[in-house]
Amino acid sequence: MTSSATSLFAPVEADLCVLTENLKKLIGARHPVLFAAAEHLFGAKGKRLRPAIVLLISYATMMGKEISQRHRRLAEITEMIHTASLVHDDVVDESEVRRGIPTVHSSFGNRIAVLAGDFLFAQSSWYLANLDNLEVVKLLSEVIMDLAEGEIQQGLSRFACNLSIEAYLEKSYYKTASLIANSSKAAAVLSDASSEMANDLYQYGRHLGLAFQIVDDILDFTGSTEALGKPAGSDLKSGNLTAPVLFALEEKPYLEVLIDREFAQAGDWEQAISLVRDSRGIERSRELANHHAHLASEYLHDLPPSEARHTLLQLSDYVLSRLY
Amino acid sequence: MTSSATSLFAPVEADLCVLTENLKKLIGARHPVLFAAAEHLFGAKGKRLRPAIVLLISYATMMGKEISQRHRRLAEITEMIHTASLVHDDVVDESEVRRGIPTVHSSFGNRIAVLAGDFLFAQSSWYLANLDNLEVVKLLSEVIMDLAEGEIQQGLSRFACNLSIEAYLEKSYYKTASLIANSSKAAAVLSDASSEMANDLYQYGRHLGLAFQIVDDILDFTGSTEALGKPAGSDLKSGNLTAPVLFALEEKPYLEVLIDREFAQAGDWEQAISLVRDSRGIERSRELANHHAHLASEYLHDLPPSEARHTLLQLSDYVLSRLY
Repeated sequence: MTSSATSLFAPVEADLCVLTENLKKLIGARHPVLFAAAEHLFGAKGKRLRPAIVLLISYATMMGKEISQRHRRLAEITEMIHTASLVHDDVVDESEVRRGIPTVHSSFGNRIAVLAGDFLFAQSSWYLANLDNLEVVKLLSEVIMDLAEGEIQQGLSRFACNLSIEAYLEKSYYKTASLIANSSKAAAVLSDASSEMANDLYQYGRHLGLAFQIVDDILDFTGSTEALGKPAGSDLKSGNLTAPVLFALEEKPYLEVLIDREFAQAGDWEQAISLVRDSRGIERSRELANHHAHLASEYLHDLPPSEARHTLLQLSDYVLSRLY
Repeated sequence: MTSSATSLFAPVEADLCVLTENLKKLIGARHPVLFAAAEHLFGAKGKRLRPAIVLLISYATMMGKEISQRHRRLAEITEMIHTASLVHDDVVDESEVRRGIPTVHSSFGNRIAVLAGDFLFAQSSWYLANLDNLEVVKLLSEVIMDLAEGEIQQGLSRFACNLSIEAYLEKSYYKTASLIANSSKAAAVLSDASSEMANDLYQYGRHLGLAFQIVDDILDFTGSTEALGKPAGSDLKSGNLTAPVLFALEEKPYLEVLIDREFAQAGDWEQAISLVRDSRGIERSRELANHHAHLASEYLHDLPPSEARHTLLQLSDYVLSRLY
């Protein structure tokens, strides 16, 4: 059950290797100035969850037939959009470290970070247009809009204790789930799957993406700095209020005082983390993640059996297993 | 002949007013954090050259029939892409002033500048996808690629005295002419013009864009800080070598010494500006701009007579008239 992402992705491991090499070449080879950034961005550290899902859905919906170059290109586009948004998010959030290594903007400066992100967004919209499928173009352009919207909403709702769980889930959809949902649907569209099947796979991606984000937000409180690759509690520190905090606020009124004054006094932030850890916030967040992971797996019901389908099902368990 | 841009654009003035209001609402209304940036970006100072050309070509190719909502949307997309690229360029170049007012990143910080640019790029690709025309999507995604490419090339060729005029023109195509060329062609495509006509209008936009960029580069040496809205000679200072400098280098070998040491000694930059002004660099650049403006007008040959066509012809004179 608690297999690692690497063994889980074994059915598409060879495809993911090719994809990583393509992406490194794409951004690095033509532009020496971006070469170091490319090694950095598409190095070994990434989980490549998003292209893996696209490839698995491609195999599952092609039902035994070989997947096309367009499926592979879609997987690349998905990883490019994701990476571009990470690079720009790090500039916006002024993050110094991600996945345990310094961010592009802290290593190479804002200049290269903005350029590298723009180049990736630009290249992805060009690849996208050249997939020659207007429906897929629309699905992915929706994602790019949602990512921008999510980043802005996150900026607007900093330190806002009145954020509802619904608004939190909406923000998480924009930030994380939209890309997984729409690229899952796009893979099905490229396979000429029925619109019912394409919509089921959209819902699979949506719920899996939400579960994934909730788990990430729990790990910000339960994980070690080492395992997280960034300081624990850093979301809370920057005012990004996530599920564990929002649930904890219902039990611990003093938490609101600390957040309202933006942890201005010594020890405020540490005390806030303790309050969250002492509340039922973590447990209730885990239940919420569980709920969405379960919903995700239900949307695979009509997909014919295959090794790829089996892996997609396991993935919803894997997302939760990261908590143990 | 030397009419101002405002009187020149009289035939599409009402359309441009609506466009400006739409763009302000689009970025400002939903997101208070971007409201100030929107006023700033789409305020009165912009020349709105790009959407004006799209609208004029739309009218000229619809030959008396009303232009469609999709033509208007294309004009908005064009201005959004242009503005997004300016905002990010200012972050990359660390520019403090543009058109006489402080840049978004200097007024509101990198955070808002990156967000505003990403939001505009995202919104434009969404609008683009929803024009429901794959050829137009491809033309404009080419532009977004070219803008990223141009910005990277400019970064790579800083202080490079061996830059050829051909390489300079290529860089200018990526930076400026590609957007005008491809959006001109896209407007023709939306009017169902013949592919010969669409290609002619692409060439019109390409040559007009090159002339426009060359004139801008001349004005960096001949204009006053007041008229330019930024310090004169600022391109040279940042190592962006343009036509007047490249021509001057053929006559003034000492200029290369000053550029090679990146104006490290006191008075280097001022002396370099004098050397350019004392050379035939300005005159030869003017001839080059003239050549491209003339080529632009020739590509209007097969376009049936109309008020819009007349304005497009005048525009190639107007571009040069900015020098007098």
